[in-house]
Amino acid sequence: MQAKLADLAKICGARLEGDADCEISAVNTLSKAKHGEISFLSNRHYAHQLNNTNASAVILAEEDLKNSPTNALVTATPYLAYAKIANHLYPRVKYSGNIDGNVIKGADCKIDETSFISANVVIGNNVSVGSGTYIGPACVIGDDVEIGENSTLHANVILQQDVVIGNNVTLHPGVVIGADGFGMAQENEQWVNIPQIGSVRVGNNVDVGANSTIDRGAIEDTVIADGVKIDNQVQIGHNVIIGEHTAIAGCTGIAGSTVIGKRCMIAGAVAISGHIQIVDDVIITGMSGVANSIKSPGIYSSGLPVTENKIWRRNIIRFKKLDEILKKLTT
Amino acid sequence: MQAKLADLAKICGARLEGDADCEISAVNTLSKAKHGEISFLSNRHYAHQLNNTNASAVILAEEDLKNSPTNALVTATPYLAYAKIANHLYPRVKYSGNIDGNVIKGADCKIDETSFISANVVIGNNVSVGSGTYIGPACVIGDDVEIGENSTLHANVILQQDVVIGNNVTLHPGVVIGADGFGMAQENEQWVNIPQIGSVRVGNNVDVGANSTIDRGAIEDTVIADGVKIDNQVQIGHNVIIGEHTAIAGCTGIAGSTVIGKRCMIAGAVAISGHIQIVDDVIITGMSGVANSIKSPGIYSSGLPVTENKIWRRNIIRFKKLDEILKKLTT
Amino acid sequence: MQAKLADLAKICGARLEGDADCEISAVNTLSKAKHGEISFLSNRHYAHQLNNTNASAVILAEEDLKNSPTNALVTATPYLAYAKIANHLYPRVKYSGNIDGNVIKGADCKIDETSFISANVVIGNNVSVGSGTYIGPACVIGDDVEIGENSTLHANVILQQDVVIGNNVTLHPGVVIGADGFGMAQENEQWVNIPQIGSVRVGNNVDVGANSTIDRGAIEDTVIADGVKIDNQVQIGHNVIIGEHTAIAGCTGIAGSTVIGKRCMIAGAVAISGHIQIVDDVIITGMSGVANSIKSPGIYSSGLPVTENKIWRRNIIRFKKLDEILKKLTT
Repeated sequence: MQAKLADLAKICGARLEGDADCEISAVNTLSKAKHGEISFLSNRHYAHQLNNTNASAVILAEEDLKNSPTNALVTATPYLAYAKIANHLYPRVKYSGNIDGNVIKGADCKIDETSFISANVVIGNNVSVGSGTYIGPACVIGDDVEIGENSTLHANVILQQDVVIGNNVTLHPGVVIGADGFGMAQENEQWVNIPQIGSVRVGNNVDVGANSTIDRGAIEDTVIADGVKIDNQVQIGHNVIIGEHTAIAGCTGIAGSTVIGKRCMIAGAVAISGHIQIVDDVIITGMSGVANSIKSPGIYSSGLPVTENKIWRRNIIRFKKLDEILKKLTT
Repeated sequence: MQAKLADLAKICGARLEGDADCEISAVNTLSKAKHGEISFLSNRHYAHQLNNTNASAVILAEEDLKNSPTNALVTATPYLAYAKIANHLYPRVKYSGNIDGNVIKGADCKIDETSFISANVVIGNNVSVGSGTYIGPACVIGDDVEIGENSTLHANVILQQDVVIGNNVTLHPGVVIGADGFGMAQENEQWVNIPQIGSVRVGNNVDVGANSTIDRGAIEDTVIADGVKIDNQVQIGHNVIIGEHTAIAGCTGIAGSTVIGKRCMIAGAVAISGHIQIVDDVIITGMSGVANSIKSPGIYSSGLPVTENKIWRRNIIRFKKLDEILKKLTT
Repeated sequence: MQAKLADLAKICGARLEGDADCEISAVNTLSKAKHGEISFLSNRHYAHQLNNTNASAVILAEEDLKNSPTNALVTATPYLAYAKIANHLYPRVKYSGNIDGNVIKGADCKIDETSFISANVVIGNNVSVGSGTYIGPACVIGDDVEIGENSTLHANVILQQDVVIGNNVTLHPGVVIGADGFGMAQENEQWVNIPQIGSVRVGNNVDVGANSTIDRGAIEDTVIADGVKIDNQVQIGHNVIIGEHTAIAGCTGIAGSTVIGKRCMIAGAVAISGHIQIVDDVIITGMSGVANSIKSPGIYSSGLPVTENKIWRRNIIRFKKLDEILKKLTT
C-alpha cells in the first residue's frame, strides 16, 4: 500500500509541514527508516535519533518540529497518529470468499459466502459465520457457535459449543474459548465435577492473545465486553465479566465470578481472586495480587521488585517475623 | 433430560419438601430460574434472592427452608447436591462408536469400537483407546499411548509418545502431556539437552484444564494420581508426583521432581519450586511461592495484596532495606 | 542403541574403571537400574543409593569411586557426562525424507527432500524447510517462513508469516511464534491496534517449551539468539531480544522491548517488565519481579516464600503500613 503524505495527514488529523506529494509506502523506526518510509517520535527516549533519520516523513509533536530534518506530520498524539497511518499502510489482509476443500462442516451451518474458511478447519452443527470473517487453519468450532462479521480467527483457535463471538474480533493462535470452568463440589474428600452449562459471550472489537483461555460459565455466561484487549497466556475463569475497553496484559489470571469494570488497565502477571469487584478506571501494575474488591478508581500495586539475592535473603527472614518484630518495637 | 423432583431427591440424598411429581428440566440461579427449573442456595451472599425466586424447586440447608417460596430439597450440603443433580440433568454427551473418515491412524492400534474418534485426529502406532472414550477434533496421539475408558479428550489435545491416560479422564482443549522436561547440563557456558526418556502416567478421574502442560519424566515417570483436578494454564514439570484428589487452580506452576501429597488444595498463580515435598492436606493460597518442603498439613500463604500505588511505593523502598532498618532499630 | 562402556567413556571424556567391554543399552536411576544399564551420581542427595545399585556402570566423581559397587566412569562433571551418554543411547529419531499425503502446501515452497512433513500440516506460500527437519502433525506454517536444518517442530506448532527458525531448533507442542505483539494506542478511552509488521528470528540450537509464545515485533524483529533454552508456558513480548545461551524456566513472562543478555538463568514464574535491559550473566530466582534494568551480573531475587497463613495475615497487615510504622519508629 502506498499513499501521499497529504492523505496520511488527513487520515490521522495531523498538520502537514513539507511536501504534500511525498510518497510513503512503509513505516519504520527513526534509526532504520529509509527513503519512502515514515517514522514517528512519541517516546522521549528516542528524541536524539530525530536529527539523523533518513525517513521521508516523521510524525511528531509541535515541540519537536524544530529538530525535524524532513517532512513532518504535527499532532498532539504522535503515537495514535502512527497507529492510524500504519493501519492504512498495512491493511488487514482481505481473503476472497472461499471454503477450503479440506474443511469438515456439520449440518445447518450459515457460513457467509464472503467469509474465508481455511484448510483443516472443523466446524460443528448449526454454526454461523458472518461476512468478511477469516477462520485460520486447523481451527475447531463447536456446535451452535456464532461468529460475527469481519472477525479473524488465527490458526488453531478452539471455540467450544454455544460460544458467541462479535464483529471485528481477533483471536490469536491457540486461543481456547468455552472450555469448562473449574467448578467442583467435595464429597468424602473427593471432587464431584459440576457441569458448566453457561457459555462465553465475546463482544465487538475484542482481541485475545495467543494461547489465552476464557472458560464458559457455570450457569450464566462469561462475558467479555466490546473493545476489551487481552494479551497472550491470560486465563479468565468462569462467569468473569470484563467491562468495555479494559486491557489485560500477558500471563494475568482472573479467577471465577470476578467482575472488572470499564477502561481498566491490568498489567502483566497479575493474579486476581474470584468473586470480587473492580470498579471502572482502575490501573493495576505488574505482578500485583488482588484479593479483595477495589472500590475506587486509581493505581494499585503489590509486586516486590528484585534486590541482590544476599539482601533479599536477609529481608525475607525479617518479613517472616515482621509482625512479631514490630510488636516488640512498638510496645 | 427431565426428572421428577422425587427422583432428584434420591439422587442427591436430600429430603423432599413439597410436590414429589414436580418436573425439573434445567438448573439455574435463584434470580434467573423459571418454571421447571431447580436452583440452589449454598452461598450466604445470595440468601436474599431465595424469597423471590421463580424456580420450581430449590436445594437448600435446613435453616433456609423457612424462607423458601417453593418446593425444596433439604440437605446439609446443598452445593454437592446441586452438583449431583446437575450431572443427572446434563449428562456427558454419549457418542455412538465411530471413527471419522479423516482420521489418520498408525499400525497396531487397538481402538475400542465404542470409542469415538473425531475429524482430523492423528494417531501414531500401537495406540490403545478404551471403550466409551471420546477423542475430539485435531488431537494428536503419539506412538504407544494408552487411553482408558470413558475418557474425554477435547479438541487439539496432544499426547506425546508412551503417555498413559486412565479412565474417566477429561483433558480440555490445548492440553499437552508428555513434552520433554526442561533438563540440561552445562558445558562451556552452553546447554546440552538431556533426553527425557520417562513418560507421564495420568490416573483415573483426572481433569486437566485448557492449555495446561505436563512434562514427561527425565528417567522415571511424571505421575498424576487418581482424582486430581487441574485447572487451565497449569505447568507441571518433569518427575512431579501429585497425590490423589489434589486440586490445582489456574496459572500455577510446579517445578521438576517435586512431590505433592493427597487432598491438597493449591490456589491459582502459585509457584512451587523443584525437588521439594509437600505433605497431604496442605492448602496454599493464591499467588504464594513455595521454595521449601512443607512438612505439616495446614494453610500456607505468601502473596502480597495490592495497596494504593503511592503507599506501595513507599513500602517497597522500606522492604528493600528491611533488614538494615530493623537491625538499627533493634540494636 | 547399545554401546560398550569404553566407547561411552570416550564420548563423555571420562576415565573408565572396570570392564571396557561391558555392554550398555539404557540409562536409569541408581535405585532402579538393572543389568545392562548405566546410572549416574551427581546430586549428593542420592549418594546413599550408590552402594546398592544394580547398574552395570555408574558415572561419578573421583571422590565417590571408592563407594562404587560396579564399573565406573570417573569425571569431574558427572551430570554433563550423563547428558552426553544419554544423547548417544537415545538419539533423536531420524525420519526418512517424506511429505505425508495429507499435507496442504502453498506455492513456491522449498521443502528439502530429506525433511519430514507429518500429517495434517498446513504450509503457506514461499516457505522453506531445510534438510533433516521434522515437522510434526497439525503444525501450521505461515507464508514466507524459513526453517533451517535438523530442527524439530512437534505437533501443533504455529509459525505465523515471515518467522525465521534456525538449525537444530526444537519447538514443543503448542508453541506459537509470530503472533501479533500487544501494541495499541488510545483514542477517546478506546484502543486502536497497531499493525505488528516486524517478525521473529530464532537462532540455532534454541528450544521452546510446550505452549510458550513469542510475539512478532512491532516494527523491528523479536530476536532469540543461538543456544537459548525456553521452558513451557513462557511468554515473550514483541521486540524482546534474548542473548545467547540464556535459559528461561516455565511460566515466566517478559514484556515488550526488553533486552536480556547472554548466559542469564531466569527461573520459573518470573515477571520482567518491558523496555528494560538485563546484562549478561544475571541469575534471577523463582517468582521474582524485575521492574528496572539490571546493570551488574549477579543473583537477584524478590519472591516471598510461604509461611503459615495466620502468621502471613499478621505480616501483610504490617506490610501495608510498613512505611508508616517505620517512620514513627525512626523519628
